[in-house]
Amino acid sequence: MTQKDVYKVVLDEEQIPRYWYNIVADLPSPPAPPLNPATSEPLQPADLSALFPDGLIAQEASTERFLEIPDAVRDIYKLWRPSPLYRACRLEKTLGTKARIYYKYEGASPVGSHKTNSAVPQAYFNKIAGRTRLTTETGAGQWGAALAFATQIFGLDCDIWQVASSFNGKPYRHAQMEVFGARAVASPSDKTAIGRQLRERFPDTPGSLGMAISEAVEAAASDPNASYSLGSVLNHVLLHQTVIGEEALLQLDVFGEEQPDYLFACAGGGSNLAGISFPFIRENLAGNKHVKIIACEPKAAPSLTEGEFRYDFGDTAGMTPKLKMYTLGHDFVPAAVHAGGLRYHGMAPLVSHVYSEGLIEAISIKQREAFAAGVLFSNAEGIIPASESNHAIAGALRTIKAATEAGEAPVVVIGISGSGQLDLPAYTDYLSGNMLDS
Amino acid sequence: MTQKDVYKVVLDEEQIPRYWYNIVADLPSPPAPPLNPATSEPLQPADLSALFPDGLIAQEASTERFLEIPDAVRDIYKLWRPSPLYRACRLEKTLGTKARIYYKYEGASPVGSHKTNSAVPQAYFNKIAGRTRLTTETGAGQWGAALAFATQIFGLDCDIWQVASSFNGKPYRHAQMEVFGARAVASPSDKTAIGRQLRERFPDTPGSLGMAISEAVEAAASDPNASYSLGSVLNHVLLHQTVIGEEALLQLDVFGEEQPDYLFACAGGGSNLAGISFPFIRENLAGNKHVKIIACEPKAAPSLTEGEFRYDFGDTAGMTPKLKMYTLGHDFVPAAVHAGGLRYHGMAPLVSHVYSEGLIEAISIKQREAFAAGVLFSNAEGIIPASESNHAIAGALRTIKAATEAGEAPVVVIGISGSGQLDLPAYTDYLSGNMLDS
Repeated sequence: MTQKDVYKVVLDEEQIPRYWYNIVADLPSPPAPPLNPATSEPLQPADLSALFPDGLIAQEASTERFLEIPDAVRDIYKLWRPSPLYRACRLEKTLGTKARIYYKYEGASPVGSHKTNSAVPQAYFNKIAGRTRLTTETGAGQWGAALAFATQIFGLDCDIWQVASSFNGKPYRHAQMEVFGARAVASPSDKTAIGRQLRERFPDTPGSLGMAISEAVEAAASDPNASYSLGSVLNHVLLHQTVIGEEALLQLDVFGEEQPDYLFACAGGGSNLAGISFPFIRENLAGNKHVKIIACEPKAAPSLTEGEFRYDFGDTAGMTPKLKMYTLGHDFVPAAVHAGGLRYHGMAPLVSHVYSEGLIEAISIKQREAFAAGVLFSNAEGIIPASESNHAIAGALRTIKAATEAGEAPVVVIGISGSGQLDLPAYTDYLSGNMLDS
Repeated sequence: MTQKDVYKVVLDEEQIPRYWYNIVADLPSPPAPPLNPATSEPLQPADLSALFPDGLIAQEASTERFLEIPDAVRDIYKLWRPSPLYRACRLEKTLGTKARIYYKYEGASPVGSHKTNSAVPQAYFNKIAGRTRLTTETGAGQWGAALAFATQIFGLDCDIWQVASSFNGKPYRHAQMEVFGARAVASPSDKTAIGRQLRERFPDTPGSLGMAISEAVEAAASDPNASYSLGSVLNHVLLHQTVIGEEALLQLDVFGEEQPDYLFACAGGGSNLAGISFPFIRENLAGNKHVKIIACEPKAAPSLTEGEFRYDFGDTAGMTPKLKMYTLGHDFVPAAVHAGGLRYHGMAPLVSHVYSEGLIEAISIKQREAFAAGVLFSNAEGIIPASESNHAIAGALRTIKAATEAGEAPVVVIGISGSGQLDLPAYTDYLSGNMLDS
């Protein structure tokens, strides 16, 4: 198959990965353990059992390289996986570049983002553990919608705390959660003790992921039938997302691209970045590839590029274990930028670790540059990307433009984590010229 | 490949059809010709040249069975085609039926509906004819978004008149058009003479497709560089949509289903219904299959089930050719139901013709029944269908439930014309219990 005959590679259902990839098995040095928030001692698996089912705790602590994906999970993955890898031929033409640009598109999932890759196994492992209810937080709403979808499929109740600025500014997102039978409220809410405290302390707060996490954790901890569910940051969440990168490796081979030069992905909590990049890091470490991996974070929440690498809480109230991560401080409240999914004070410990080891690089991007890239991309390719994904495109465009000027023709892969269908008001804000350049 | 191992069949890009299927070549009797609105004589191709480019006029009048799809169009089709055909295993389980249910899903297209199948060739044939601007109408906005996408790809200007009730009630849709560089206004508007007249006569009108067509036709007729573009009704539009049915036939074969019993599709102007069903009608007429085809129209605009089969105008102002079709009268204004794409007073002449010949059947469905079906479907399958598509699901559920009670196990195919991502407020209206049962 020659490259110019193929615009996308979809793969067969049979080629949906059978294993999640656990990068812990291949790291040059072990990541720092999470600490019990009360004792500051390394966390024991049992410490997590109030919040998570055994299946997910085992994944969280696993050092095995490959963890089998249960058939019941793969069956649901078949609804939208394998996701397509496209050659961005028209974008190349628009840019007048000889670079070969590819993008892996997660936006065709049932709720329009990569988040379903982890929501489905999280619902499944809770179901088989006998839990009947999940609580969670969500930023822009992709994760909440994904968990609402997955809990509906597996017959679980679902309560969602959505960051207030997104809840109010993006009503379609909680409508989506409600179609799937979940209950969604704006955070901070009056449904939890910590929510009531936060509302009193910060009456005008737009909310943050850290606050919403505190509320969802409190709700789960006070209900023995409930588990807490997190859409990013934790090892098991990143693990589930590796199906993206495993498929992308196969698809690039079909395109005849065995040595991509760059991989760009947006990074908020880190699950999208980890999902597409960890399998590439494995190939880099094994000497099979030499792909430069670049995390694209928002300037409004620049944990990797401006944060400190230290132990911090995952939430605002300090209820979660302490995690060794790049952090802006657990009380940091990012500006209310449109890319709600990236508004997090920290970065997943495993992503932080590979960054500290020099296995990936990071840049930060303001939202106007991100949306300019998103409009350029959608006008060329016909797909409107999620606000979050626009950061990856903007990062890629910087490199492609510089390379084109230098007469180079790199092979560039962009992870498009979701569809922008529910982010259209953000595009309107950008096109009107009113978008804050945060 | 056994059925239970496969949830969806996607096909390779190579299996995107190379030809559109023109049902005119196979009809037992010829359809009645369109009439010149001024003379009431049969329309000549030249009568259309003020509004359409030659390539589309030739398709409109063609009696050839198969018309080749240009490579430049197939290349763009590759962005989302072939579209998947799913086995609805979880829906079958939810219903407790032995029926085998399949659905062909057009919602993964760049704007979330089947409309891109015709928008792309329409933009292409205008481009090669040297036209630089397209004008069109849109109801819910799927067609407008599709044409905005396609004109952006081919570098044409685009002006869109959107039915006012949808323009105001569904702001995400015109945002989508604007991202692709199109200009969208609410119809009736003050941009055209007919629009200004309609606003004076009916100051509180929610608008209608008939009114918006009048405005777009007026705008195109008064600009020599512009063409008018229609998203349904006309022969060439239905022709372009046959890629849906051609793929579905191939995919059912892969599933081992050579004799489906029923095919359900929603019908407004008729392009979605025609697109999925005409290739099945060909197979029925040839004696290869015996598929019962059922058009599902909204009770608010029941042209097939309650209209008259006679000549009528395609628009409100009487500017278009007269078409022999099932019609509720060109001044009929449907209730402002959520399925804006089905709010049309008439039915495509070719669909009307096959209905009058007994080659398809029709039923009408109120919107609460449609949304109940849509929620049931989305909770089982994880995909939220477009408001329009819910009518097809509701129709199928009636048959499946009756068959299940009778101990039968039919094979049922449902055409899902689009995604409901931008229809979420309609779902909220339904879930709140406030939806009018129109």
